Amino acid sequence: MKSKDLLGIKELSAEEITKILDTAAEMKQLLQSGHKKSNRMVGKNVAHMFYENSTRTAVSFDEAAKILGAVSCNLSVGNSAAAKGENLMDTAKTLNAMKFDVIVIRHQASGAAHFIAKHVEASIINAGDGGDEHPTQALLDMLTMREKFGCFKGLTVAIIGDVKHSRVARSNIYGLSKMGANVRVCAPDTLLFAGTRELEKDYNVKFFKTPQEAAQGADIVMALRLQLERMSKGLIPSIAEYHELYGVNEKLMSHAKPNAVVMHPGPANRGVEISSSLMDSDRSLIPSK
Amino acid sequence: MKSKDLLGIKELSAEEITKILDTAAEMKQLLQSGHKKSNRMVGKNVAHMFYENSTRTAVSFDEAAKILGAVSCNLSVGNSAAAKGENLMDTAKTLNAMKFDVIVIRHQASGAAHFIAKHVEASIINAGDGGDEHPTQALLDMLTMREKFGCFKGLTVAIIGDVKHSRVARSNIYGLSKMGANVRVCAPDTLLFAGTRELEKDYNVKFFKTPQEAAQGADIVMALRLQLERMSKGLIPSIAEYHELYGVNEKLMSHAKPNAVVMHPGPANRGVEISSSLMDSDRSLIPSK
Amino acid sequence: MKSKDLLGIKELSAEEITKILDTAAEMKQLLQSGHKKSNRMVGKNVAHMFYENSTRTAVSFDEAAKILGAVSCNLSVGNSAAAKGENLMDTAKTLNAMKFDVIVIRHQASGAAHFIAKHVEASIINAGDGGDEHPTQALLDMLTMREKFGCFKGLTVAIIGDVKHSRVARSNIYGLSKMGANVRVCAPDTLLFAGTRELEKDYNVKFFKTPQEAAQGADIVMALRLQLERMSKGLIPSIAEYHELYGVNEKLMSHAKPNAVVMHPGPANRGVEISSSLMDSDRSLIPSK
Repeated sequence: MKSKDLLGIKELSAEEITKILDTAAEMKQLLQSGHKKSNRMVGKNVAHMFYENSTRTAVSFDEAAKILGAVSCNLSVGNSAAAKGENLMDTAKTLNAMKFDVIVIRHQASGAAHFIAKHVEASIINAGDGGDEHPTQALLDMLTMREKFGCFKGLTVAIIGDVKHSRVARSNIYGLSKMGANVRVCAPDTLLFAGTRELEKDYNVKFFKTPQEAAQGADIVMALRLQLERMSKGLIPSIAEYHELYGVNEKLMSHAKPNAVVMHPGPANRGVEISSSLMDSDRSLIPSK
Repeated sequence: MKSKDLLGIKELSAEEITKILDTAAEMKQLLQSGHKKSNRMVGKNVAHMFYENSTRTAVSFDEAAKILGAVSCNLSVGNSAAAKGENLMDTAKTLNAMKFDVIVIRHQASGAAHFIAKHVEASIINAGDGGDEHPTQALLDMLTMREKFGCFKGLTVAIIGDVKHSRVARSNIYGLSKMGANVRVCAPDTLLFAGTRELEKDYNVKFFKTPQEAAQGADIVMALRLQLERMSKGLIPSIAEYHELYGVNEKLMSHAKPNAVVMHPGPANRGVEISSSLMDSDRSLIPSK
Repeated sequence: MKSKDLLGIKELSAEEITKILDTAAEMKQLLQSGHKKSNRMVGKNVAHMFYENSTRTAVSFDEAAKILGAVSCNLSVGNSAAAKGENLMDTAKTLNAMKFDVIVIRHQASGAAHFIAKHVEASIINAGDGGDEHPTQALLDMLTMREKFGCFKGLTVAIIGDVKHSRVARSNIYGLSKMGANVRVCAPDTLLFAGTRELEKDYNVKFFKTPQEAAQGADIVMALRLQLERMSKGLIPSIAEYHELYGVNEKLMSHAKPNAVVMHPGPANRGVEISSSLMDSDRSLIPSK
């Protein structure tokens, strides 16, 4: 790896992505074995700083660090020095002085992880920064796709839903495009981000007006979580209407390839951005199936 | 054990209870030794999901998992996907996909642990579900009784207090009855649960009008925590009056056997359901003595 | 060590302080090595009870316990039995019954750690009690000073700021005085504690009217965090005026020795009790430099 940090998919080359996925596949075998224990990180320390709520991401990093033999410490940053007015950088530098080798950070500000990474020796892993990137979720999604389809070349992935607030979508667009997949995106106009269409120049991504067009002949349809508080802000008319227009369900899947699968980065709102029956069907790669 | 899970005492046979208590006695020896470390669970992963507040139960499970060499991860479900609207089952299935071998769950809904257990491969341990059961606390109580009295046959246990809201009481009624003890229960009418008296048909339990009758000749008197918020709901007249009528104190203990002991599942309200002096006396098996 | 506990610097002898600093220096070498892992505490259990917010202190204890091979368990006492009305002592006795060897406690009440220590077998480490002491932070400060200056004999340390609410200041006064350093203190009258001046009889400490006098010829200037909520209570006129009068900055440092350094127990309010430029300068021993 060129960098000491994992800040975003944008910074990774296709070779680096492949290397990470190969290591992840190896780690998955360990995780599926009867004896989930390794010495790879014995003598190393990992700190977790989650300034935004998380269950699955936070516990994944904690579980991984512990299985690999690292010391894994959670900073309850909600009730913390941050609340006492300390700035993010001073907190990070203190952790660096405590000799944490890896600092996993989720922060509401885009660029927070990049900012810290420049100023500390510790390796920074971005577990989500503002509306920017969520690289490890995208790498997980890509691993799941590679397991199912063997490679990315020629694969068509349709991402449907609230792209605007989805750092996972952004990371997946960068990653899938770099790996040679065709990415299609469809969202209500109110849930597209500024500059969305400029991505078309730099990445192998196309924006579509309707989910049906985006899903047409796709191998994978990925539904994105709709944050329900968007509704109160007038960005969507009603949940029922949102599902009618942009919900991923069996009807929409009929436009995709016969063996197409559905994915969702979770946590899902059943009956909103994805139908409960599709989520539980054989076409679903979602763990809650 | 017949089941992969520990959901309630109701589902256990007397043989299984004995087997668990024997293992617990062995673990207690480890805990009392100078070197509290074992390899029994190396390579196994335990996740803790506490949807209701807990100190002693949560830390007991965490301490136990770590002493046995397991990876032990806490899900801060208060600030979590649950709060983002994800349903309990989807969270549990995600944990299952993360290859947690054991999921310890406390949930405000009765039956939550049973529900999950049917749908995942992981072993589910019920750390308290609604007003239903709290099996591990009852097993701990039974271990304490067995240590003190040698066996359960012919032992008389009087449980005094808020039975209605006590899942510990319910689990103890099932367990002690199965093990051959005589269980007596006394509570104000407003703090009995519906169907309480039907238990008399299936279990070796009798309900009494006064604490004095219940405690008469008992070997063990168990006081139950009174949740003070009950008072505001008009279920009890006043704390002073509650202690006067249902408080477990030296006066009440004079009705029990001369060598009778007092227990409390904790945390206790001193001066409410139990007198402070009795709690600190030689008759008390409560750790805070 | 004479005592099973670490409750305050007040109770320690100079020999004991030296012994702790020597061990800390050894541990620091371990922490700076590539392999941060030791077996010193394998088979031992540590519980953390933080009734007040903490990031750096809490994570330091957790990291240390884990690196040394101990089982390290955090009690989320915010959401806990404490909230259910259990008293501190009963919680501590329960932990003692769970065979925790060490209980680290931070509590808003002065004397809380001392009170518990008398009643349990576990070793109690005071991680801050009310406005009384914060011994481990002072030991860390003293280690930093010893690393920089070799010894304490003849060293002049000026502590500037909110002494009243600073348990770190108190612990440093006791410790530095015992080790032979000269301690100088300067604070606004509203931020001195009652009995401050009586300390002058028992300890090698002098109180000064102005920061300039206190800093005159000092080797170390230590700025204390100003809790901003003090302002709303009328204890200080305004933040700008506070910095003008009591802020530690380059101008104030010009009164100290040419090679004098600045310290801060953190977390710091940049631009309030310490200037941002000084904090980031070569004269700063603050990790966030």
